[in-house]
Amino acid sequence: MGKCKFWTLRSNFQGQAKLSDFQLVEEDIPTNLKDGELVCEALYLSVDPYMRLFSDWSEVGKPVVGEQVARVTDSKNAKYPVGSVIRLSSGWRSHTHVKDVSTIDVMPELGDLPLSLTLGVMGMPGMTAYFTLLDVLKIKKGETLLVSGAAGAVGSLAGQIGKIMGCTVIGFAGTNAKVKWLKELGFDHAFNYKTEDVGKSIDRVAPDGVHCYCDMVGGEISFQVIKRMRDHGRMVVLGSISTYNNSTETTGPYLFSDILTKSLTITGFIIFNIREKWHIGEKQMAEWIKEGKLKYKETITNGFEHMPEAFLGLFSGENTGKAVVKA
Amino acid sequence: MGKCKFWTLRSNFQGQAKLSDFQLVEEDIPTNLKDGELVCEALYLSVDPYMRLFSDWSEVGKPVVGEQVARVTDSKNAKYPVGSVIRLSSGWRSHTHVKDVSTIDVMPELGDLPLSLTLGVMGMPGMTAYFTLLDVLKIKKGETLLVSGAAGAVGSLAGQIGKIMGCTVIGFAGTNAKVKWLKELGFDHAFNYKTEDVGKSIDRVAPDGVHCYCDMVGGEISFQVIKRMRDHGRMVVLGSISTYNNSTETTGPYLFSDILTKSLTITGFIIFNIREKWHIGEKQMAEWIKEGKLKYKETITNGFEHMPEAFLGLFSGENTGKAVVKA
Repeated sequence: MGKCKFWTLRSNFQGQAKLSDFQLVEEDIPTNLKDGELVCEALYLSVDPYMRLFSDWSEVGKPVVGEQVARVTDSKNAKYPVGSVIRLSSGWRSHTHVKDVSTIDVMPELGDLPLSLTLGVMGMPGMTAYFTLLDVLKIKKGETLLVSGAAGAVGSLAGQIGKIMGCTVIGFAGTNAKVKWLKELGFDHAFNYKTEDVGKSIDRVAPDGVHCYCDMVGGEISFQVIKRMRDHGRMVVLGSISTYNNSTETTGPYLFSDILTKSLTITGFIIFNIREKWHIGEKQMAEWIKEGKLKYKETITNGFEHMPEAFLGLFSGENTGKAVVKA
Repeated sequence: MGKCKFWTLRSNFQGQAKLSDFQLVEEDIPTNLKDGELVCEALYLSVDPYMRLFSDWSEVGKPVVGEQVARVTDSKNAKYPVGSVIRLSSGWRSHTHVKDVSTIDVMPELGDLPLSLTLGVMGMPGMTAYFTLLDVLKIKKGETLLVSGAAGAVGSLAGQIGKIMGCTVIGFAGTNAKVKWLKELGFDHAFNYKTEDVGKSIDRVAPDGVHCYCDMVGGEISFQVIKRMRDHGRMVVLGSISTYNNSTETTGPYLFSDILTKSLTITGFIIFNIREKWHIGEKQMAEWIKEGKLKYKETITNGFEHMPEAFLGLFSGENTGKAVVKA
């Protein structure tokens, strides 16, 4: 009988997440499956900033939440024979006993594209970027789009989709290497928010203000952007990485006067609420990649045992593009 | 030749607005009108909290912005003969020389209703309440609506429209007399935010949270409400009276985590942007008043020379319902 491993929380995070908050647990892999059930083994696992936020409600002792791509290793389900590759949200687990196959995601058509993309460009981050721009912001050609956390998994794709849609795209990231990469991706303007004044940078390249803002970070950058949004500007809150590790109330600037006098709209958006539409976005993203219009970068960490390190890298600015763990 | 008076700002407000910030100016009433022009004399003038905000961009020396209902006293325009009653946004002026009659608002059908209502229930505040609930929040029967600044011109109407739409309505106001009035208006729950804990009050009467929030005040009350909004909750920022008199940056709570994880939508709304639709709301409000479904209160100050006092009363909590000045 083999062993399954999973990562759980020793306790809910207090402030900055740290390695000692995580605990690796072993259990037996079940063998006597019932009809319809299967067991799969993780191939790639996703680590994403949102997991920091969701962990506040996670139950200590249960696996940390998250998506993975896995291969079926045991099956009593004809639809998923041994060897099938599936995508599921079973958390930070090396093996998963799937009792209800309706919890398995539909896999996108990958063609020649790498399997890990089902957790990135064609997974949660990619779909977040796609539906934010097309469904929530309804971005229009000629508008100015600003993306914070622009070198991350969602931000780097949101900016590129903005370019495909015919927008002027401004990105903020935290290192010069990331800024250089954003320019290679076709961002019209990219700045290092750690070394350049956010407000003055926007004033220089978008003196008439910003139509749309994809906010990954919250805090001071968002404060500066909101002050520079145009009348009827639209802002989507997709993340708030600058505030996740505060153990106190995560408050930040809330510019009532700006929201009111400029008739702004601010929307929080969670892609898991519209999973039934993902196939539309996945198909489009695959086409854009094949046409050379969309580029991506993955930061791959080897080894299931290094999941906590890969996750913590998201908050220290080490990560560019999508962070994935190869099991 | 008669004299026209208007109120202007001695300087833009610094912090709390005060009487000495205003200055009364006299000028001649023009006599030799050109074809198409007219002169009118104010009958009722509106004072509203938004004027505090807009004054930051007002030009010192020009009349303070605002609406009025006026009677035509001289005319070279056949459409508006002497004696006609018109509504216009010419600011805090006793007389207005109208050179372009396209700037005159269409007057609603009043029937037997008092003329001052064209500045209240059937004017800016009433239309704000109506279109906020029907067009922006798109409020649905059975939802829970929370209104801050609920005893004011907009809030008292928004709460009553919520009741007409079949919602549970919670109001916050700043005196026990106002709270009593809100209950007379049919609010399901009303609280004095100065003497009761906002968060605990909401928890008690709406343990499942709030669907919709009409925010007039910003600041600490909004912080407590946002924390208690339901998933996909909708919030409209209509005012921010708690922050207007801050001379520093008007920052307040901005709950990134709440906006994100609950997929909230926050929209700033200015009714002047959809003036072409007012006639729909005005007709409906008149019907509701006649049917006894909608009640209103006016705080009328007598005398054009007392406009600054009437305006300052909006910020000291003295005002209930719509504040109007009878010239």
